[in-house]
Amino acid sequence: MEKKRVRLTVAYDGTNYHGWQVQKNGITIESELNRCLSDLLQEPIEVIGASRTDSGVHALGNIAVFDTVNRMPAEKISYALNQRLPEDIRIQKSEAVASDWHPRRCESRKTYEYRVYRGQFPMPVRRLYSLFTYRMLDVNRMREAAAYLEGEHDFKSFCQTGAQVESTVRTLYFVEIEEQGEELVIRVCGNGFLYNMVRIIAGTLLEIGEGKRDPMDIFTILEEKDRAAAGPTAPAHGLTLVKYEWYD
Amino acid sequence: MEKKRVRLTVAYDGTNYHGWQVQKNGITIESELNRCLSDLLQEPIEVIGASRTDSGVHALGNIAVFDTVNRMPAEKISYALNQRLPEDIRIQKSEAVASDWHPRRCESRKTYEYRVYRGQFPMPVRRLYSLFTYRMLDVNRMREAAAYLEGEHDFKSFCQTGAQVESTVRTLYFVEIEEQGEELVIRVCGNGFLYNMVRIIAGTLLEIGEGKRDPMDIFTILEEKDRAAAGPTAPAHGLTLVKYEWYD
Repeated sequence: MEKKRVRLTVAYDGTNYHGWQVQKNGITIESELNRCLSDLLQEPIEVIGASRTDSGVHALGNIAVFDTVNRMPAEKISYALNQRLPEDIRIQKSEAVASDWHPRRCESRKTYEYRVYRGQFPMPVRRLYSLFTYRMLDVNRMREAAAYLEGEHDFKSFCQTGAQVESTVRTLYFVEIEEQGEELVIRVCGNGFLYNMVRIIAGTLLEIGEGKRDPMDIFTILEEKDRAAAGPTAPAHGLTLVKYEWYD
Repeated sequence: MEKKRVRLTVAYDGTNYHGWQVQKNGITIESELNRCLSDLLQEPIEVIGASRTDSGVHALGNIAVFDTVNRMPAEKISYALNQRLPEDIRIQKSEAVASDWHPRRCESRKTYEYRVYRGQFPMPVRRLYSLFTYRMLDVNRMREAAAYLEGEHDFKSFCQTGAQVESTVRTLYFVEIEEQGEELVIRVCGNGFLYNMVRIIAGTLLEIGEGKRDPMDIFTILEEKDRAAAGPTAPAHGLTLVKYEWYD
């Protein structure tokens, strides 16, 4: 039987999941995909994900691939799979790809958004998708600091300690701060991200916006190559993986 | 003891509530406010709401008033009450008002938004706050129809049958259609709304956008003064009461 590789674009509300990656205790996005795909295609399926998002983190377009011998056309799998998945996970696209295409072994860029809701009190309809703050944020200071983060740097200070990686050098193509009414969107696009990198960037930019730190501190934080030099890790629920792009 | 009247601006995510109004079975926004206020102020409190939103409908700023003899400053009640309320209800403001101010007996205008998410598949992070449709919508046709709804009309055709009201004449100050990326926002502002009026307007405008009806049908629907003449009642979860304004 001929085997084909299928690529899924996966959107989810991370609120009710223990993150992407399969784990012993708790339901994950990956475990739900594996369960529903195995059921649909009548063979054991294990997907490979592009971004193993943390518990509570959302996605508009994460990527997963898997191999199957089932003859269902790849582009029809999205429809059939969505019938089986819980409503907080929805496949946006399914398509056949080359048998050696691997989401973590290709040149790619990811875009994340970290959302902050600014107000005197939290807004219930935004509580699951943005961090609430009653503190005044100086957006110009945040924009200055964001610009210093752009480009190729050793982001070791922006990596959760204990993470095992060969290199902590990454390139950020842009770090922009957009105001959408009460919400502030920190949008970060790069060729790769270290563990908790976007959340540590968000936590640091927020301290700069609050006046606790200077925008120029970014230079010394990068130089120190020490997690303790950067700001706190902002909570998971404000983070959304919005886009994953690759160069075949 | 001196009695004072306090006005609350209330925001909520309606997903987990059986609407605003107290009922025997099921938790409502009103019952939660009464419970937490009575507990906080140590006297039995019953609020009066401006808009008795249906199950699943959200609000950024509904209005409620109540009387209390408690000496806690009115503007401090928001902070103390938010400590007790569940996280999907948040008071945005509390303030003292004249003892005869009543939210349903004053000249006022309400603004509602009905949100529609357009895509091939639903987007999980928007599923609780907008209606999903995969159908193509012609926004220009919807805008033409929206304009015909503006002004003073007898909206009997846009009122759920069985509702008891003296008059079904209302004035809509504007009905606008805004595109926000994949979302279409139907924004309606008027001096009063009949039961399910915004949801029937949304259901009718969607049929016009889908090409099932003509924009000019609005005239005959209004003339017929019959619920059966209008389109379906759009689902509750797409609806949000965004603003309530009054003229003292």
